[in-house]
Amino acid sequence: MENHQQKSASRVMCSEASQFLDQEIIIKGWVQRIRHLGKIAFLQVRDRTGYIQCVLEGQWAKKSLSLESVISLKGKAVAAEKSPSGVELVVVSLEVINIAANPLPFEVNKENLNVNLDTMLDQRVLSLRNQKEQLTFKIQSTLAGAFRDFLVKHGFTQIFTPKIVAAGAEGGANVFAVNYFEQQAYLAQSPQFYKQMMVGAGYERVFEVGPVYRAEEHNTSRHLNEYISLDLEIGFVQSEEELMDLEEALLSFMFGKVKSAFELELNKYHIEVPEVEKIPRITVMEAQRILEETYGKSSPAGDLDPEGERLICQYFMEKQGSAFVFLTSYPRDVRPMYALPAACNPDETASFDLLFKGIEVTTGGLRIHDYAQLIASIQSRGMNPANFESYTEAFKYGMPPHGGLAIGLERLTSKLLNHPNIRYASTFPRDRHRITP
Amino acid sequence: MENHQQKSASRVMCSEASQFLDQEIIIKGWVQRIRHLGKIAFLQVRDRTGYIQCVLEGQWAKKSLSLESVISLKGKAVAAEKSPSGVELVVVSLEVINIAANPLPFEVNKENLNVNLDTMLDQRVLSLRNQKEQLTFKIQSTLAGAFRDFLVKHGFTQIFTPKIVAAGAEGGANVFAVNYFEQQAYLAQSPQFYKQMMVGAGYERVFEVGPVYRAEEHNTSRHLNEYISLDLEIGFVQSEEELMDLEEALLSFMFGKVKSAFELELNKYHIEVPEVEKIPRITVMEAQRILEETYGKSSPAGDLDPEGERLICQYFMEKQGSAFVFLTSYPRDVRPMYALPAACNPDETASFDLLFKGIEVTTGGLRIHDYAQLIASIQSRGMNPANFESYTEAFKYGMPPHGGLAIGLERLTSKLLNHPNIRYASTFPRDRHRITP
Repeated sequence: MENHQQKSASRVMCSEASQFLDQEIIIKGWVQRIRHLGKIAFLQVRDRTGYIQCVLEGQWAKKSLSLESVISLKGKAVAAEKSPSGVELVVVSLEVINIAANPLPFEVNKENLNVNLDTMLDQRVLSLRNQKEQLTFKIQSTLAGAFRDFLVKHGFTQIFTPKIVAAGAEGGANVFAVNYFEQQAYLAQSPQFYKQMMVGAGYERVFEVGPVYRAEEHNTSRHLNEYISLDLEIGFVQSEEELMDLEEALLSFMFGKVKSAFELELNKYHIEVPEVEKIPRITVMEAQRILEETYGKSSPAGDLDPEGERLICQYFMEKQGSAFVFLTSYPRDVRPMYALPAACNPDETASFDLLFKGIEVTTGGLRIHDYAQLIASIQSRGMNPANFESYTEAFKYGMPPHGGLAIGLERLTSKLLNHPNIRYASTFPRDRHRITP
Repeated sequence: MENHQQKSASRVMCSEASQFLDQEIIIKGWVQRIRHLGKIAFLQVRDRTGYIQCVLEGQWAKKSLSLESVISLKGKAVAAEKSPSGVELVVVSLEVINIAANPLPFEVNKENLNVNLDTMLDQRVLSLRNQKEQLTFKIQSTLAGAFRDFLVKHGFTQIFTPKIVAAGAEGGANVFAVNYFEQQAYLAQSPQFYKQMMVGAGYERVFEVGPVYRAEEHNTSRHLNEYISLDLEIGFVQSEEELMDLEEALLSFMFGKVKSAFELELNKYHIEVPEVEKIPRITVMEAQRILEETYGKSSPAGDLDPEGERLICQYFMEKQGSAFVFLTSYPRDVRPMYALPAACNPDETASFDLLFKGIEVTTGGLRIHDYAQLIASIQSRGMNPANFESYTEAFKYGMPPHGGLAIGLERLTSKLLNHPNIRYASTFPRDRHRITP
C-alpha cells in the first residue's frame, strides 16, 4: 500500500491503473479519442501498455485537444464496470506536453488502419501507433528474444560478424557495393562464412541476429533488400535431421513465448499461433511429384517456384493440418558450394528448406568441413579458390563437421501475423525503390 | 543414473565428464596438447566447455596426431586427483575426424598467445581457440544478452532498423556510400533517428543491438569502422540524470552477469570486473579545470581529447576508486542538432558521455521533441531541414519528451578485459585497411 502511494506520485501505466483504485494517479500518453458531451467529455489516453478511459468535467470538459497530442493527466482512478480494464480516470488536471498538428494524415484510432501500404510506410511513426500495427514489432521483439533464450540455454554463444566484406559468400551476384576508402567492398549477403569460422574457432555453437543484404532487382510482397537473419551454426552435428529437430524445438519455444505474452491481443485480432510439433519432411523431388499429381503444377529443376511453395503448403495444411513443411535433399546444382553432398547420393546435398504458410522461411543444412573437398567444390562451380582464401584457410587446421540454418525474421513475423506483405513486418523497409524514412 | 547411461552413448562435454565416473563416455574436440612417453601418451582434448586429460595406452599410445586435429574418443572416465577437473579419460578407441595441417602457424595451446595482432587477426579461427582469447566473445555474448534482459524487464521493445539510409544522421561527414540500384545511399552511423521515431511510434522504450558505420580515416587502437552499438531510447524521461541512473543500473546488471558466469576464468586471468555503483558526475568544464590544475593539461573547446579522457579517468580512479566517470553539460557546439538544450543554460545540452578506463564508451542525452525547435536547431547548424524531412515529419504529430544513450560493445568488452587494442574485442575487425577475413 505504501509502495503504491509512493508510486502514484510518479507516472502510472494505463495497464496498471486498476491497482490504484480510489487513488490519485498520473497518466501520460497520447490522445487516442475524445468525445465532447456538453458539460462532460470522454477521453481515451494511450501509452505503451494500452489505454484508459478518462472523464473530463468542468473547465477540462471544454478543453480542445487534437488527436495524438501528448498529454499528462492527474486524476482519480475509479471502478468502472463498463470499461474493459475495470477502471477509468476522473481527471483533476490536464497538461498538454506536445500538441499534434491537426488534422492527422489518416485516422490512427481505428481498429484497422484504412490506408494504403505506401502511406503507412511514409508515415511510419503515426501508423505504428495504431494498436493492431503496433503489435507486430512487440511480437517481433519477443521472437528475437526467444530465439536467443532458447539457444543460450543450449550452449550457444551470440556472435557479431562484419557486414562489410571483401567478397560475396554465394559467388558474387546480387551484392551491394560499398566504397570502402581505397578498396571495393560489399554488404554481406549472410554471415555464412563467419558463423562457420566461429564454429571452427572453438565456440562450436554460435548464433547471430543481424542484417543481411540482397541486391535483388525484384520488388515483390515477399522480398526485402535488407532484412534480419536469425542465423545459427553448430559443430559436431551428424545429420541434417538433427538440425531440423533443433528447428522444431526452437520454433515451438519461440511461438510458445509469443502465445503466452500476447494471449489477449492474439485473441482480439483472431491470430492463431500454430503448434509446432513434428513437421512433415519430404524430399524436394517428392514435393514436385505431389505438385504435378495434385495440381498439375510443374516445377523448375530441383526446386520449387513461389507458386509451388504456396501449393505444397496448401497441400500439407489440408492433409495434415500443418502450417509448416520441410523440403529436403536439394540437388547440388541449386545449393551453394559449401553445401555438404548427401551421404547416400553425391548429387544431392544434406540440406533443407522450411516453408511456412506458403513461403520459405529457412534454408539450412550440413556444410563441407574437409579442406580438399571444399576447394574441389569451389572449383567445380567454375570459381577461383583464391578468392575465398581467408575463408578456406580456416579449414586447414581442424574444422569439425558442422551445419546450421537461418530464419528470415520479417518473413516469420509477417506469416505468423498473416500480413499480406512482408513490409508490414519491417520497421522501415528497404526495397527496390524505398530508402526513406 | 539411467539418464547418465543413456547420455553416455552420445557425446559428453569435457566439463561434464566428472559426472560419469567409471563409465564409458565419448568425448569430441580438438587436440590441444600431446606428450608421448613410450608405452603411454597423455593427450589433452578441448571442446567448447574446457578440456580433459586423456591417457593413451597400447596401440593408441603410438598414434601420431597433429595438434588442433578434430578427434572423437571413447574411454572410461576415472578419478584423477591431480587433474583440475578431478577426472581423466582412459582411452579405449580414438577416431580422427579431421586432421589439422602441421605445423600450425603459431602455438595455440600457450596460456598467452605470443603472436602479433595482425597474425592473430589473419588467423582468427586458430587464435580464438586459445582459451584466453576465446573468453572474449563468450563474455561479449553475455554482455549483449544481459543488456537485453535488463531492458526487457524494464518494458523495452527490441527494434531492428535499417542500416542502409538516405542521409547521414550527423550531417553528412564520415559516411560510407552504398550503390543502391539507381540511388545513392549510405551506411547508418547510428540508429539515432530511427530509435527516436520508434519511441514516437508509441513503443516508448526501445533498444537495438546492431552494427554502425563510421568512415573515419584514423587507424587507432580505439577505433573500428564497423562496430556494434547497444542503443536505447526512452520516452517521457524528465532529465538526463534519469538516463545516467538507468545506465548505472544497466551496467551493474551486465557486469554482475559476467562476474557470476565467468568467475573461474576471470580469476585465472586476473581480470577484475568493477563494481558499478554511483558513478561520479561532473561537467565537462569541471573536468577541464581538473585536468588543467592537476596535470597542466589543456583541452579543446567544450570537450576532452583522448589524452584528457585518459587523465580524467586516472584522476577518478586515484581519488575515488572509480573506473567510470560521467561528463555532463556539453556545449551545443560539440553536440548534434537533435541534442536538447539544458533547461538552466541554453548554450549547453542536457547530454553526457560515460568514460571507462580512459575511453568514452557512451554518449547520451535528452533530445529535442518540439517540431519548431528541431527545425530551428537544424537551421542553426547551416543545414537544410528539407534533407531531414522523413525524420522531422515524425515530430509534427505528438512526439513525447525523450532521451537515450548508446554503448560501444567492443569498447566496453575490450576495456573490461584490459585489451591493449579494441580489435581484440571484434571477431573480424574492420579498420582503415582491413576487410578480411
